[in-house]
Amino acid sequence: MFASSLRTGLRSSPFLRSAASNFSYRNKHTLILVRHGESTWNLENKFTGWVDVPLSPKGHDEVIEAGKLIKAEGLEPDVAFTSTLKRAIRTLWHVLEQTDCMWIPVEKSWTLNERHYGALQGLDKQQTVDKFGKDQVLVWRRSYDVPPPVVDRSSEWHPSNEKKYSSVSFPDEFTESLSTTLDRVLPFFNDTIAPQLKSGKTVIVAAHGNSLRALVKHLDSIAESEIAELNIPTGTPLVYNLDEDLRPIKQGGCIEPLQGRYLGDQDAIRARIEGVKNQTK
Amino acid sequence: MFASSLRTGLRSSPFLRSAASNFSYRNKHTLILVRHGESTWNLENKFTGWVDVPLSPKGHDEVIEAGKLIKAEGLEPDVAFTSTLKRAIRTLWHVLEQTDCMWIPVEKSWTLNERHYGALQGLDKQQTVDKFGKDQVLVWRRSYDVPPPVVDRSSEWHPSNEKKYSSVSFPDEFTESLSTTLDRVLPFFNDTIAPQLKSGKTVIVAAHGNSLRALVKHLDSIAESEIAELNIPTGTPLVYNLDEDLRPIKQGGCIEPLQGRYLGDQDAIRARIEGVKNQTK
Repeated sequence: MFASSLRTGLRSSPFLRSAASNFSYRNKHTLILVRHGESTWNLENKFTGWVDVPLSPKGHDEVIEAGKLIKAEGLEPDVAFTSTLKRAIRTLWHVLEQTDCMWIPVEKSWTLNERHYGALQGLDKQQTVDKFGKDQVLVWRRSYDVPPPVVDRSSEWHPSNEKKYSSVSFPDEFTESLSTTLDRVLPFFNDTIAPQLKSGKTVIVAAHGNSLRALVKHLDSIAESEIAELNIPTGTPLVYNLDEDLRPIKQGGCIEPLQGRYLGDQDAIRARIEGVKNQTK
Repeated sequence: MFASSLRTGLRSSPFLRSAASNFSYRNKHTLILVRHGESTWNLENKFTGWVDVPLSPKGHDEVIEAGKLIKAEGLEPDVAFTSTLKRAIRTLWHVLEQTDCMWIPVEKSWTLNERHYGALQGLDKQQTVDKFGKDQVLVWRRSYDVPPPVVDRSSEWHPSNEKKYSSVSFPDEFTESLSTTLDRVLPFFNDTIAPQLKSGKTVIVAAHGNSLRALVKHLDSIAESEIAELNIPTGTPLVYNLDEDLRPIKQGGCIEPLQGRYLGDQDAIRARIEGVKNQTK
């Protein structure tokens, strides 16, 4: 609120300071991020990317619980965004059902999809480690800007072979790094999600490990060297309070470096954040 | 195709006739209508209208089956419309899941809601018959333009008391007849659904007994005196092939007076159409 008063230059009189406080309060914006629950391929330990696999039974349970946590927090989403992948869409549907707001508008965009894993899609993570070595796989999984090998248009995994991407133009050889994922997530956030937040709406975004990394990197100003190591657990609501410039207002109970707050059992959440790191160990 | 050639005036040469045939074929439009599955209040035999009750377990099963029938027919919806009531939304979600097109755009509009039943909402159908008499209730249920008693803004059923309708202006005293339901369904069809059909997209609409009556009255040119007696069974896909002017192309296996075709066991469907008539008998 102090920073906000400074920015709007309204500190000169008590009356205006009060007005500024009210203004700041009324313009506190709420953004809820949810990573999809466990998918059938998480279970099989395969690189998934844009492969459109469903939630596992455990994944369904996880995100029903996520919805209950959001409901218990008294949060009421006004508008929702999700990727075009069914594990995120089904996650959102569960949350909307649990929070009794199935009626709100939902926009689905491929720009919120998981990072495309190129030619690694469909491969077993352990077999990929055996074949390419742990270090190379770690670079593909956790570097900021080294993409995995490409797929071309002859591959079943090239997006031009799927009806849902028919209106989008993709390069002949396609793959994504975390960096290029950011390049399509952030324009969507700035052009489409941010105006909804600024208009006072509570926004929920159901998406993926890497598209959510892109968002929290932006919101929390996390360095390129740190973001790929940051793990966002599945099915765990992450709630940001944002000021009128959509900068996070720090809350109690955050887990560094995030200024958003996870809902749920904090010890369990910390354990799950550590757990994601061990998938190729 | 013959009618289409006549309209476009291209019957004079075999070459043009052939072109007209192709044109007509390419412009055959597909519209799928689905009435929501059984709700918990259908079970309790209450007047529901805009009361936002969920599907019953049987209702879930019904519309999962509807999705499977649409899938088996080889139909792939490109865009979907539904009301803002959860029994229709949940119906649509099941169908999208079964037809593997959860990613398609979905627009929710209150103009596809069930008819608002005014002061009858929440009342038991049999008790209402006992209180007002069978003839009066039949008029409210089956007349074209006699609405049930109104609700005012003090009623929990007045839409101004629900967040989801906050952007819509409703009269202080509110109720709907089938006629006034048509007055809000048809503009939405003409302004929003029809352009999607004309652009070549396969459209699915999940809605309610009376909002779907409004649509089929328009599509099949059914008289005011007949439409209120027409029963559309729950969870049964009704598929229209439409020409370039969005007039139904008559198919085999239709049940009069509809020119759309129900998917599923035709004898069972006929039995269900008769069944709806008996609710206040």
